Amino acid sequence: MIKKDGFKKVRLEKLFVSSPNTANSLLTMYGEEVTECISKNKNYQFFFSQTKTFDLIELEQLLQAVGWSRRPLRRVRKALDNSLLKVGLWQHDTRFPRLVGFARCTGDGIIDATVWDVAIHPVYQKLGLGKNLMSYILFNLKKMGISKVTLFADPGVVSFYKSQGWILEPKGNKCAFWYAN
Amino acid sequence: MIKKDGFKKVRLEKLFVSSPNTANSLLTMYGEEVTECISKNKNYQFFFSQTKTFDLIELEQLLQAVGWSRRPLRRVRKALDNSLLKVGLWQHDTRFPRLVGFARCTGDGIIDATVWDVAIHPVYQKLGLGKNLMSYILFNLKKMGISKVTLFADPGVVSFYKSQGWILEPKGNKCAFWYAN
Repeated sequence: MIKKDGFKKVRLEKLFVSSPNTANSLLTMYGEEVTECISKNKNYQFFFSQTKTFDLIELEQLLQAVGWSRRPLRRVRKALDNSLLKVGLWQHDTRFPRLVGFARCTGDGIIDATVWDVAIHPVYQKLGLGKNLMSYILFNLKKMGISKVTLFADPGVVSFYKSQGWILEPKGNKCAFWYAN
Repeated sequence: MIKKDGFKKVRLEKLFVSSPNTANSLLTMYGEEVTECISKNKNYQFFFSQTKTFDLIELEQLLQAVGWSRRPLRRVRKALDNSLLKVGLWQHDTRFPRLVGFARCTGDGIIDATVWDVAIHPVYQKLGLGKNLMSYILFNLKKMGISKVTLFADPGVVSFYKSQGWILEPKGNKCAFWYAN
């Protein structure tokens, strides 16, 4: 079992013995790498999945709920296809799991990666899910052998990242953006 | 002919009529998309190529000459393979073209791209090559349909990017880095 910073890989083999139905259902829903995300709310169960297909409309609703700007679904689909890593965080339900968190990464898969579109649905904030989502992402990027991860932080979340060991503007680095018209 | 901001695509078909040897040599050396980079030094000719293979040792020497830290060649090779775009800037020579500039991009190929490892060899700086390299990169990313390009600027080059229309820290965004130990 992998247990680290608020998440744990589900031990399917054990679960198959004690509760084969549950094991099968988790496997089908979230894929073989199904990982539980620990939260402060014990009434719900949350799972990370890197393979569960997103309903793009549900994903857009989530991203808009946290204030990201609307983007054409066709472009979002292609961006997801070309991302190095995409993680959905689901509030578990045997019939209708709900997408409550998301993040994706781009990069060269070895030297650097950049995290984009980090979102936890406002209703599910303050449960530790965001912190655990970032730990889960860094854990997986590290497993790929990536040595440096970057992101762009809104003023409102700078302290969130700082408290988790991210270094703000190392060596005076400034981010610069260029927009196509 | 594409002519925009300091670079122009080489018109091979015309060149083939007037000087087939030169046309053939450029094609073989830099690939079909061979593009001339205009500079202030008229004694030399410079070309961009997205396909000419890099000698990794020559590339590392260039990156170190501008102060980037040394990285294992095996990792550099994989990072290049997985980059969205990699551009070499060559001082032309019919036998031994010299790598004098470089930049690469990662990204999802549609929504965002990040520019890394921008380098112009110190000996070739102040000729307008860096500006033209960035124009060439943005032109190619725009052609792919990418709407937002990002980069991390050292304090020493912030004004360089600013003067070319890059927006520093839009909406107060700060860059954050995380390093695997």
